[in-house]
Amino acid sequence: MHSLPHEVKGTPARLYLDDFHIGQRFESGKHQLDREQIIEFASQFDPQAFHLDEIAAKNTLFGSLAASGWHTAAITMRLNVERGLPIAGGLIGAGCTIEWPRPTRPGDVLQVFSEVTSVIPSRSRPERGMITVRSETRNQSGDILQVMTGRLVVPRRPAA
Amino acid sequence: MHSLPHEVKGTPARLYLDDFHIGQRFESGKHQLDREQIIEFASQFDPQAFHLDEIAAKNTLFGSLAASGWHTAAITMRLNVERGLPIAGGLIGAGCTIEWPRPTRPGDVLQVFSEVTSVIPSRSRPERGMITVRSETRNQSGDILQVMTGRLVVPRRPAA
Repeated sequence: MHSLPHEVKGTPARLYLDDFHIGQRFESGKHQLDREQIIEFASQFDPQAFHLDEIAAKNTLFGSLAASGWHTAAITMRLNVERGLPIAGGLIGAGCTIEWPRPTRPGDVLQVFSEVTSVIPSRSRPERGMITVRSETRNQSGDILQVMTGRLVVPRRPAA
Repeated sequence: MHSLPHEVKGTPARLYLDDFHIGQRFESGKHQLDREQIIEFASQFDPQAFHLDEIAAKNTLFGSLAASGWHTAAITMRLNVERGLPIAGGLIGAGCTIEWPRPTRPGDVLQVFSEVTSVIPSRSRPERGMITVRSETRNQSGDILQVMTGRLVVPRRPAA
């Protein structure tokens, strides 16, 4: 077993494929969302009434202003990059699945809870491999806003 | 069969569940990406060297500056909202899978090509259903940058 100093508060270590194991957990920092951020993101990338206007949102499936799912996904990435998932070489995703079980709302404080679900060395490329990570994005009440299961490219630890 | 005026250039019609069928295709408008947009998005949501700095990107898996996959996803949403997928009630996703087969680069002109792969009325809610849509985001050379398969909530046509 490697010691895992990244699980201690402070500057996270950078982890190689060799450092990951199934069941390993990580917690990100937090991000507080507000109405202005929701409207700004939606104006640029998802300009629909329920993401832009509280009054118009009332007559939609959402019932009140909700963040774009892509905004929740982008904040999740930010939180994981900052200190949620300290991978050597950075967070490089090959693909993922996303579910949005409930809307993200103004005032929600987002935090990401991740768990490694597979660790697979590459057969063709001995210098790297792939891990699968399930990341839940929750609000301050513990409600699950997004579940993302992503496949990430991770380098192996270089020979000393 | 309904006539489908949305496939004609101009203001798209708004389609209900009843208007969709497997194999139906849609094409979005185009969006030209540049270095500034890539760096701006990455600064906010995915601050990693290969998305922020051309020199630093050289020593990474990407080899040169590449957009965040979440940026490609957000632009895909924008293109589908604008006129790529004219769904009555808007584009409301329950979840999706995404693959990024190759990086999105500065200068790429993105366009989304979508195909309906399933149409399923809700058993519990007679007023709506779900469609599955496979959206390929391609650049001006036809390279596939992203494949997203999303499940969208779609209202049924109200009784006349």
